Amino acid sequence: MPHVVVRMIEGRTEEQKRALVQRVTDAVSETANAPKENVTVYIEEMPKTNYAVAGKLASDK
Amino acid sequence: MPHVVVRMIEGRTEEQKRALVQRVTDAVSETANAPKENVTVYIEEMPKTNYAVAGKLASDK
Amino acid sequence: MPHVVVRMIEGRTEEQKRALVQRVTDAVSETANAPKENVTVYIEEMPKTNYAVAGKLASDK
Amino acid sequence: MPHVVVRMIEGRTEEQKRALVQRVTDAVSETANAPKENVTVYIEEMPKTNYAVAGKLASDK
Amino acid sequence: MPHVVVRMIEGRTEEQKRALVQRVTDAVSETANAPKENVTVYIEEMPKTNYAVAGKLASDK
Amino acid sequence: MPHVVVRMIEGRTEEQKRALVQRVTDAVSETANAPKENVTVYIEEMPKTNYAVAGKLASDK
Repeated sequence: MPHVVVRMIEGRTEEQKRALVQRVTDAVSETANAPKENVTVYIEEMPKTNYAVAGKLASDK
Repeated sequence: MPHVVVRMIEGRTEEQKRALVQRVTDAVSETANAPKENVTVYIEEMPKTNYAVAGKLASDK
Repeated sequence: MPHVVVRMIEGRTEEQKRALVQRVTDAVSETANAPKENVTVYIEEMPKTNYAVAGKLASDK
Repeated sequence: MPHVVVRMIEGRTEEQKRALVQRVTDAVSETANAPKENVTVYIEEMPKTNYAVAGKLASDK
Repeated sequence: MPHVVVRMIEGRTEEQKRALVQRVTDAVSETANAPKENVTVYIEEMPKTNYAVAGKLASDK
Repeated sequence: MPHVVVRMIEGRTEEQKRALVQRVTDAVSETANAPKENVTVYIEEMPKTNYAVAGKLASDK
């Protein structure tokens, strides 16, 4: 702990994910004063057909 | 914000999802007095093999 | 199931919450073809000091 | 209710999932004094490429 | 990991919570074959005014 | 979107929270190539009496 969940539309490369978890872990560890080895990050990818803003599916835009 | 997550067994059609996000966005916007463009809805689909009620997997029913 | 979570800034009245859970339950039940008695809705209220958009806390706006 | 979500790396067998939901339902029902038929369990499986501890993706270990 | 979240109406005693996290940790560890020290459990307590089944707030029952 | 949730034990100062949401927003925006104004961060604070590692409540440590 802390446990971080990042929800975003699917499609980022593994390289982007690698950079994201590293940067987010550093950000949380350094500001919340939590040891890095305790920080977990989960990237929850959402299909465009399952996510909507203002009532419109991302797949319909 | 508000951010809505709807967890349900996978298998609805895209048409059902389109109607669901529209109706849920209207419902939340109108009752919580939040601008529609700020409301997000995520449909999180669960495989039957991963969801249980009363200790029984949905795939075993 | 379906299980719905609505995350929003704290402060709505009980009357607004009553209307929200009713309208959201109807919306999900009718579009996802799920019996109303199976639909659950949880309103997760967020303090302004704990929610940020574009890197700014809501309490700082 | 209670609603339980178990997040773990993907890959368990259906047999393991069957045992997990049964044991977790019993554990929650008996300690929280909640009728078994009201307890739901959702196993949310995470790809190794999307989960990190200490800033390192599980797929890079 | 695994990370478990148990959502339930607020009001259990600390004794009940102590028993719940122990039993749930054992259940998940033994069925998912995960070391106990990696298992986390978070009890998310919901006010009755914020949780509804079939469109009715628990506080209205 | 992306929507970030950071779950941690309650008790950080408002200053720490301000720094955390800023750094996490930058980290996600720059690595996932998402406009900053679309990134939301929610800090979900957990009481020590409700969070356990290896079956032990944080409040019992």
